[in-house]
Amino acid sequence: MKYPDHLLKLINLLRRLPGVGSKSAERYAFHILDWTPKQLHELANTLIELPQKIKHCHECGCLMQEPPCHFCNDTRQSSGSLCIIASARDVYPIDATHEFHGLYHVLGGLLSPMDGFGPDQLNLDPLKQRIQKHNITEIVIALDSTLEGDATALYLKKELEPMQLKVTRLAFGLPMGSSIDYVDGGTLARAFIGRGDF
Amino acid sequence: MKYPDHLLKLINLLRRLPGVGSKSAERYAFHILDWTPKQLHELANTLIELPQKIKHCHECGCLMQEPPCHFCNDTRQSSGSLCIIASARDVYPIDATHEFHGLYHVLGGLLSPMDGFGPDQLNLDPLKQRIQKHNITEIVIALDSTLEGDATALYLKKELEPMQLKVTRLAFGLPMGSSIDYVDGGTLARAFIGRGDF
Repeated sequence: MKYPDHLLKLINLLRRLPGVGSKSAERYAFHILDWTPKQLHELANTLIELPQKIKHCHECGCLMQEPPCHFCNDTRQSSGSLCIIASARDVYPIDATHEFHGLYHVLGGLLSPMDGFGPDQLNLDPLKQRIQKHNITEIVIALDSTLEGDATALYLKKELEPMQLKVTRLAFGLPMGSSIDYVDGGTLARAFIGRGDF
Repeated sequence: MKYPDHLLKLINLLRRLPGVGSKSAERYAFHILDWTPKQLHELANTLIELPQKIKHCHECGCLMQEPPCHFCNDTRQSSGSLCIIASARDVYPIDATHEFHGLYHVLGGLLSPMDGFGPDQLNLDPLKQRIQKHNITEIVIALDSTLEGDATALYLKKELEPMQLKVTRLAFGLPMGSSIDYVDGGTLARAFIGRGDF
């Protein structure tokens, strides 16, 4: 016996969420079955209004409700530094560190030829224009420490070389509070290479 | 810097899903931000249509799209056996075993005085009426093996005693494919008590 068609449809739509397989989608769907019509409408309307209510800043690519973009203010524009991130989501944890006060630039993805995301999709022209417009002198590459992140970082370094900027990348090393026993060899090696005065 | 208000609203609504904390809700919300308006409308409409499209059978409480209820057919009504389950969801895995061919009865919950679900909420009158109407001779209690499931099973047994039915409960023992090393002591004890000829 199969689930009613409409329930099956809901389950399949919920499976679009990242990391949600059929078991979780079923669990969510059966939970949603107990929601009141008011609760159902709340989520439905929030979904429908999403494109109107949340926009991407044309300059930096960060999320914003209404212009002007919070991350493109005057102080940041005159800071001379720009941090390159993969997605609009990354700006929030970085901003919460209070260690960076410059501009952000959202790439929108990482080089991944298998997924059809090549150098053309990175669209570096607007980035180069922003670097010139705001007299940027330091670029911080804040990308994942993955194959795709490394490839993208190297590509950016090569592309930005003619502009004679200081290009840095986030440090690699032990995560705070970690035990050396549990840290992988690659991280430990990078922590040795990057060791500093104490 | 906080997320835009509307994104925060979506995150909070997604946290209503079972087992979804703020980290998962954020992950889902940022994924949904990349959905097309068509995809957003698909999920929104499916949510809104849910109460009209999926109903509970007035007899057994199982889910159904249109009457008649698939689980209340003539063969099942004349089987003389009835399986008591906690929620409409439970009928699907039980039915997939092909070991039970009788009627179902959805309780809608388990006794849990802390959550305000007492004997009154179990609403046993319709159950007793169905038992008489369909000349039920065997009741199978298919409830969780938890404190609430055990309490509900005992309460049902006591309540149904005057009707002089055969009341059984699902067997307890080793899950299939399990290693004795990893089975808890309680389960192992029940497996010994319930041991059978081999």
